[in-house]
Amino acid sequence: MAPEPILLTPGPLTTQLRTRQAMLRDWGSRDPGFIALTAELRQRLLDVAKGQGSHAAVPLQGSGTFIVEAAIATLIAPGDKLLVLCNGAYGERMVTIARRMGRQVEALSWPEDRVVEPARVAEALRGDPAVTHVALVHCETTTGILNPLPEIAAAVAGAGRHLLLDAMSSFGALPVDLATQPVAAVLASSNKCLEGVPGIGFALVREEMLAARKGNSPSVSLDLEAQWRGFESNGQWRFTPPVQVVAALVEALRLLEAEGGPEARRARYANNLRVLLAGMRRMGFDLYLDEAVQAPIIATFRSPEGFGFRRFYDALAERGFLIYPGKLTQAESFRIGCIGALGQGDFERLLAAVEEVRASA
Amino acid sequence: MAPEPILLTPGPLTTQLRTRQAMLRDWGSRDPGFIALTAELRQRLLDVAKGQGSHAAVPLQGSGTFIVEAAIATLIAPGDKLLVLCNGAYGERMVTIARRMGRQVEALSWPEDRVVEPARVAEALRGDPAVTHVALVHCETTTGILNPLPEIAAAVAGAGRHLLLDAMSSFGALPVDLATQPVAAVLASSNKCLEGVPGIGFALVREEMLAARKGNSPSVSLDLEAQWRGFESNGQWRFTPPVQVVAALVEALRLLEAEGGPEARRARYANNLRVLLAGMRRMGFDLYLDEAVQAPIIATFRSPEGFGFRRFYDALAERGFLIYPGKLTQAESFRIGCIGALGQGDFERLLAAVEEVRASA
Repeated sequence: MAPEPILLTPGPLTTQLRTRQAMLRDWGSRDPGFIALTAELRQRLLDVAKGQGSHAAVPLQGSGTFIVEAAIATLIAPGDKLLVLCNGAYGERMVTIARRMGRQVEALSWPEDRVVEPARVAEALRGDPAVTHVALVHCETTTGILNPLPEIAAAVAGAGRHLLLDAMSSFGALPVDLATQPVAAVLASSNKCLEGVPGIGFALVREEMLAARKGNSPSVSLDLEAQWRGFESNGQWRFTPPVQVVAALVEALRLLEAEGGPEARRARYANNLRVLLAGMRRMGFDLYLDEAVQAPIIATFRSPEGFGFRRFYDALAERGFLIYPGKLTQAESFRIGCIGALGQGDFERLLAAVEEVRASA
Repeated sequence: MAPEPILLTPGPLTTQLRTRQAMLRDWGSRDPGFIALTAELRQRLLDVAKGQGSHAAVPLQGSGTFIVEAAIATLIAPGDKLLVLCNGAYGERMVTIARRMGRQVEALSWPEDRVVEPARVAEALRGDPAVTHVALVHCETTTGILNPLPEIAAAVAGAGRHLLLDAMSSFGALPVDLATQPVAAVLASSNKCLEGVPGIGFALVREEMLAARKGNSPSVSLDLEAQWRGFESNGQWRFTPPVQVVAALVEALRLLEAEGGPEARRARYANNLRVLLAGMRRMGFDLYLDEAVQAPIIATFRSPEGFGFRRFYDALAERGFLIYPGKLTQAESFRIGCIGALGQGDFERLLAAVEEVRASA
């Protein structure tokens, strides 16, 4: 087997060996041992966002898109209307999902390099009393931009609407505090800042909102209320869970706690980003976003004139670093992630490899 | 960590250590290395059922229920009508899924201990020209009964309708031959007779049926046509795949080939069942089904008078064997699976443990 590359992507990420080693065991999915593991998972997910007592943790099989679709399917009733705040591909995808399932939905959009503006959100809500729910992507992986969650949450709550937060690429590192922030549902997945492996997503949802939506989802599989009732009734997953992925995520959550929790993780990622930006800038690569709105998650760089991404990717891959293509609609770009079980030394080695590749080009 | 128990369940199962070791590595989901792994996965899945040239392999994130729902969502149009042949819980679940998404569906039912009868299927199809698709569960895990696939496939094809086959608990061991049997779509998952770990399901679907159903699914996540188009366009999964689960399944498929393919695996499972039934019968446990219709997958035993399942389960679990509760609607029962990386010696040890537990009761 070739030596393992370092993943500089928005996920799947480089994980700790201990997290992967937690997958070396088989589990009976209805055995008390696995039921206890599931209970620990749900408790630890709530702990990360201080959601105990107000929210329920509902893990679901599948990718991040599955949990986003399940949340829309379960929480938005046919008489409701969802307003999606869009400044990238993941906001757009929520609009597509809601539209496909026949729910009322509208987009309020910004350019990809601009944050969602709370004042414009408040104004839109004043202008459309039919809107019952608002969806926001915390950190848009399209660019790596960080939207101002506290101000938007306040604007949505101030207008008496419910906020659904896609915290896919931020959960576990950037602060989400359900004890003080008015957020109805937070959606994320196992393989981003929690540093687990991919295979499950999860929602932290206000219990009374879930309880009010029995039978609302048009999908048996993507029904968070039924999934939640399953956990509450016997501690088991309704349908076969990816037991090894669950075990890995529990181990990853224990490692998050050992690291010092989300604040320590954010600091490590912020340092990764600092090292990365300084080095890339030295080599003449321009950050796409204004640094003031850049999240310490993934950085988008403009492709220089005559830049061949494929050749650059392959040359870095040969040296053990996997970077990520761009996803901008307007400009040629590439992305480098700052998250995963990586530290300053990894980014210094990456920068040396980039330098080598640029020199030999 | 406690020593690993042996899983005698319908899945997740006991897998080979090599299969689990394939999960020790991180993969970039859009890297050429993982694209090659996905291509090998899709090719090997088709090989198991001789579906090359006629069918496309479409893996999907999630449990078996997710792939069943995705197949119904994608293949059954609003003007179509699905007839589900039911002799257990998994047939009933297909009816629930189709009804929840608003598709036309009807059930044709048999008692749980009786096989689906091809003549009654043919008669029902003559009587209802609106039915366009028929769904059958190959082996109903509810009881362990084997439905007569060749005769039912012939009856459905003879009436000019399409057959969807839920081969969840049979695929990889009981024969499904797409080169000679008229089956439009086969649905199964990673963690049954293929002996992978749970986290993905897959469909083998006639390509022209997929191509005709663009935009038909009400779900973005559970859309097999879009998922298939994704694989065909760039070899990548549309949404983040559970990379370690994929790697484990590819390893498990290589091990299936090394064992001698589905025929060799069926023979091993049949021997497991033979040893199990002989031993359990000696101790006075009655098989629920007539042995002539019992598949070598999972056996249901009637609970003896005054039998305490919980105590029996715990006593066997202490000895390293996890059995499975019953799912009959009519009688007290429990189940013991014959599948997974287990052989005659494991079942002999299980029988010794059962004898010990019975003696000490």
